[in-house]
Amino acid sequence: MKSLDGAAAVLDHGGSLGRAMALFPNAPQPFVDLSTGINPHSYPFFELPATALSRLPEAARVRDLADVAASAYGAPSAANVVAAPGTQILLPRVASLASPGKALVLGPTYAEHQRAAAIVGHAVMEVDDFEALAGADLAIVVNPNNPDGRVIARKRLLELAGKLRARGGLLVVDEAFMDVGPRAESLAGDVGQGGVVVLRSFGKFFGLAGLRLGFALADALTVERLEAQFGPWAVAGPALEYGLRALADSGWQAEMRRRLAEDAARVDALFGRFGVAVAGGTTLFRYIRLSDAAGLFSVLGERGILLRHFSDRPHVLRAGLPGGDEEWQRLESALADWAQQRDDDAKEIKQ
Amino acid sequence: MKSLDGAAAVLDHGGSLGRAMALFPNAPQPFVDLSTGINPHSYPFFELPATALSRLPEAARVRDLADVAASAYGAPSAANVVAAPGTQILLPRVASLASPGKALVLGPTYAEHQRAAAIVGHAVMEVDDFEALAGADLAIVVNPNNPDGRVIARKRLLELAGKLRARGGLLVVDEAFMDVGPRAESLAGDVGQGGVVVLRSFGKFFGLAGLRLGFALADALTVERLEAQFGPWAVAGPALEYGLRALADSGWQAEMRRRLAEDAARVDALFGRFGVAVAGGTTLFRYIRLSDAAGLFSVLGERGILLRHFSDRPHVLRAGLPGGDEEWQRLESALADWAQQRDDDAKEIKQ
Repeated sequence: MKSLDGAAAVLDHGGSLGRAMALFPNAPQPFVDLSTGINPHSYPFFELPATALSRLPEAARVRDLADVAASAYGAPSAANVVAAPGTQILLPRVASLASPGKALVLGPTYAEHQRAAAIVGHAVMEVDDFEALAGADLAIVVNPNNPDGRVIARKRLLELAGKLRARGGLLVVDEAFMDVGPRAESLAGDVGQGGVVVLRSFGKFFGLAGLRLGFALADALTVERLEAQFGPWAVAGPALEYGLRALADSGWQAEMRRRLAEDAARVDALFGRFGVAVAGGTTLFRYIRLSDAAGLFSVLGERGILLRHFSDRPHVLRAGLPGGDEEWQRLESALADWAQQRDDDAKEIKQ
Repeated sequence: MKSLDGAAAVLDHGGSLGRAMALFPNAPQPFVDLSTGINPHSYPFFELPATALSRLPEAARVRDLADVAASAYGAPSAANVVAAPGTQILLPRVASLASPGKALVLGPTYAEHQRAAAIVGHAVMEVDDFEALAGADLAIVVNPNNPDGRVIARKRLLELAGKLRARGGLLVVDEAFMDVGPRAESLAGDVGQGGVVVLRSFGKFFGLAGLRLGFALADALTVERLEAQFGPWAVAGPALEYGLRALADSGWQAEMRRRLAEDAARVDALFGRFGVAVAGGTTLFRYIRLSDAAGLFSVLGERGILLRHFSDRPHVLRAGLPGGDEEWQRLESALADWAQQRDDDAKEIKQ
């Protein structure tokens, strides 16, 4: 177990071009930003009604959104859905549903869960053994996991939820990447009886992270408690309109899942050609273990290709998907440069 | 003093067309919605970069927004500014800055302050005597007040803040309508020393309530505490882009203040012509006391003109500003109908 220091400190995240420019000031721009798990193929833009900007969001539209989200995610009903301005802002509020106690996060995973649980008063530990979670007041599992894509079966999660519920504990399952995961393992349909909160992210799969839209799925009483914290008008007009349209568009979703699977296979093949084996991930990001992870990160970064590295895990990288032909070509040529350098270095050592 | 029952219940607010349609199903549409204090003359729309929707908001842009907001509102520096997805979502978090204790709200005022303080554990009372606030752990003043426009002088607020600070208490000043208020009475410049949090709303004055953008101004340590609760990416891309442009546009702001003052005077004159005296307000909404408030609300509502009424204060109404010629004409003709009915009723009684 590893305890958390400096919970309130600002954490390093992917997706910041400012950070990329500071790290690689001489890189050609624009950056090919593969540092996130956000879909590069955004849901098609459309013109928003002026009232989406000018008027307060209508309560009836928010109820419609909850309805559409319940269908899309497989929650029992709209009464089991809280819409919020991003999943991120939900984290401390969801962690607060459990009285301050022992919070255990199945790691390594998305770092904000530890931070959020700590700032609302929990003693937070990261554990790598799933069975250990049963001893928590608040247990947090990211499923599929970020960054390695590990999936915990629904059956095991339900068993864990049952144990926690019996002791008044809470299981939080962050399904931020379940849109491209094995949806049969989702707990979205199991939130009705309480003791389980499922988090779903809109921006990642739909490629609209700037809109800020996320959901908590829970029993109806917990939904009311969370909604009371956010008050009326929590979701902005633009997020509401895009959410309503995109979550109802099951055709786009199916086609996108197919396309992302194809792209992910292409990324694996490309890395594989240069001797880099992909060890896991989801079809929105690939997980790479490599002794020379730091070298790969640097060489690609200098060429304007931004991967995600993890300061506490130097042999691990995460790579999102390139968005278009030029991005694929730049990734390929940067990988070729890195492989060339590696091979040259190896020859030098031999000589 | 009046204690608060059912703090978590959903409160009635202006600005809902769904509610208007339920109340006045036979009214001609579209409604002329005067039920809010939102500027009908929105800041000019512009095309957003696609990345405002697709990418995570950049930390550097958020820092720029804090900078621009500090200048626009007169806060000491960007380190004294928290940007959030609306002021509403800030209320429980700001109320949480004071340990659960006695929260006093200077009323009657915007009802969400009582609700927010109650759900984070305060014992909340509404008081109508400013001096009574000195006995609070958390004191909340809306300045200028909604709906009556009452202004408390900065000097008195600073004295109150001093008394509260000496006892470890906190003063929250909601300046949602200070953009059109006597800005010399703002406490935005006084937040540096702690013990005071000022709330500012973006959507009302700029007529962009759907974007969800609001600010808390506070000492730097309090800013950090609030930011930790919201996490990275709290403000959506569209709100960020509009906030950056509109808050820096002092020319538009000055011209809009002039225009709103003109509009407000015109509303007063119009109501006055029909024997309705305006008793206060700001230039974004007018405050009306009238024995026949219920009748005026109904007759106008049936004609598709929506005012704000207050279920617990039957002789009070609030009226926002009409947005264009047609809205002015519909208001005038509805007022004429109401006055005619009133005069006919009066004659009948005399006969």
